[in-house]
Amino acid sequence: MRGLVLGATGLMRWDDLRVPEPGVGDALIRVRMAGICGTDLAMLNGYAGFAGVPGHEFVGEVVGAVDETWIGQRVVGSINIGCGACDECRDHGPDHCQGRRVLGIRGHDGAFAEYLTLPIANLYRVPDGLSDRQAVFVEPLAAALRVLDQVEVFDRVAGKRAAVIGPGRLGMLVAQVLRGAGADVLVIGRSEASLALPRELGFKAGLGSDIADLDLIVETSGTANGLDCALDWVRARGTVVLKSTYDAVSDLDLTRVVIKEIRLLGSRCGPFDRAMEWLSAGRVETEPLIDSVFPLERFDEAFRRAGAPAVRKVLFAIG
Amino acid sequence: MRGLVLGATGLMRWDDLRVPEPGVGDALIRVRMAGICGTDLAMLNGYAGFAGVPGHEFVGEVVGAVDETWIGQRVVGSINIGCGACDECRDHGPDHCQGRRVLGIRGHDGAFAEYLTLPIANLYRVPDGLSDRQAVFVEPLAAALRVLDQVEVFDRVAGKRAAVIGPGRLGMLVAQVLRGAGADVLVIGRSEASLALPRELGFKAGLGSDIADLDLIVETSGTANGLDCALDWVRARGTVVLKSTYDAVSDLDLTRVVIKEIRLLGSRCGPFDRAMEWLSAGRVETEPLIDSVFPLERFDEAFRRAGAPAVRKVLFAIG
Repeated sequence: MRGLVLGATGLMRWDDLRVPEPGVGDALIRVRMAGICGTDLAMLNGYAGFAGVPGHEFVGEVVGAVDETWIGQRVVGSINIGCGACDECRDHGPDHCQGRRVLGIRGHDGAFAEYLTLPIANLYRVPDGLSDRQAVFVEPLAAALRVLDQVEVFDRVAGKRAAVIGPGRLGMLVAQVLRGAGADVLVIGRSEASLALPRELGFKAGLGSDIADLDLIVETSGTANGLDCALDWVRARGTVVLKSTYDAVSDLDLTRVVIKEIRLLGSRCGPFDRAMEWLSAGRVETEPLIDSVFPLERFDEAFRRAGAPAVRKVLFAIG
Repeated sequence: MRGLVLGATGLMRWDDLRVPEPGVGDALIRVRMAGICGTDLAMLNGYAGFAGVPGHEFVGEVVGAVDETWIGQRVVGSINIGCGACDECRDHGPDHCQGRRVLGIRGHDGAFAEYLTLPIANLYRVPDGLSDRQAVFVEPLAAALRVLDQVEVFDRVAGKRAAVIGPGRLGMLVAQVLRGAGADVLVIGRSEASLALPRELGFKAGLGSDIADLDLIVETSGTANGLDCALDWVRARGTVVLKSTYDAVSDLDLTRVVIKEIRLLGSRCGPFDRAMEWLSAGRVETEPLIDSVFPLERFDEAFRRAGAPAVRKVLFAIG
């Protein structure tokens, strides 16, 4: 099969990869469409030390499964594959299993290829009403919805003054989720060009001056500066959600976390079923988030494009 | 009056300080006993940029107040003095008022002197059953109890695997609070000598090897290394409470916060009334936490002693 492989020499296209073998309980899925995410870009620079087929945002069609009712179904899939045996797996599912594999990120080949395998337990049928171009956003939208679950343990989001730092692909999903939950949302970027998308989606957007006393800030930029601003801008007893990964952060003044009693919440994967509901109900717009669609053959151009500043989602049309 | 003053040349004793003038609504309090806290030691090195009389852990006697029912009462007092007019003060009290003064820390002279003033609203009567040596722990114990309030918003502490990093004065109050709430508590120090106190109080204590998957870690050491260990040792979806202040932290890998979805909670001042209840009910032992009691005259020796490694609480007997 055709696919992209991340190895010691970077990302390469292969036309003769072996189609992966599904284990018992797994489905073989033909990938229809896949999205390039910030994590994929970071992995090209060595993040997560992954070697194999990257890609974890996808929509595809089941072409092989022991349970034949799945065959022909259009699906998306959650990306964590747990051991299934540990307390964590049994009590909370696979997301934090210490021995987990992660689609296209850790120990399991991903979606930038014609076929992938995933446990049937990870799959979600895509309703006919959702296009491939929408369904490919289920994974990142689920991650955005995770913020809501984590914050609403403490406090309702409705009516709160919120900001999203980073008007990128994930940031714009988070911003829509917070707005959908009733928050007053400001989007903050580092350049005027980066503010076009949030404004197109009807958000207040700015470069981050005169901001103070926000109830909730979601940091999606993954920069030390973004985090530093968040700790300044959040109110006492407010919440900062870290929605991106960080390189080692230098000279971060954490005294603010203590003095202001800030809640700092790390946030990762979220609920696929609810993401599908939000998309089906039209509560989140994805079409304006799409920059372009490439065939796998033009992966080099696609990745270059996805890595440029203020670029929207770059997709692969695969099968 | 006699008192200690922190100024540009360090801490000095004065014998002819003016007795502070209580405003309307304030009480004039004769200080009976006061404790040296880590914050006081940090202020000697410039933390908080305070100039004036330091000291914020005290027990004293009201000697002047418009409401005469307070006169002669033995009291402790919460340390934040809000503007009383802002939304924060009105909705949540003075602890996070942006214009607040803080006893012995910001804009308001403190307890290392014969007299101090505080708003009557900040005072709590000390029951006869509590000695001065116990009552002087109300302020730090309240701060320790704050951890419980913050954590139990989302999860019960009872039955949890917890650790306290830093077997110091505050750490030992936090450890007792967590044990009192039903947690299984491990205390972690940096030297064998520092583990004597936690062991005397019946805690498991160690230097921090082979630790993993803890539900709750309270970092009281105020060191970057303590925080780094906490992020390693906490389980996925676990909680780390920052109970000390930090200098700028270098090379901190915050990716763990995201990947493990750690909750990082800054924690400061807490409920005085509940601290008094816990002390009265004998739920927290303070006598083993006391190292020594000094007169103000020997402040130099007292501060040197309080700043030595693994030293217990140093108190001033003042009035």
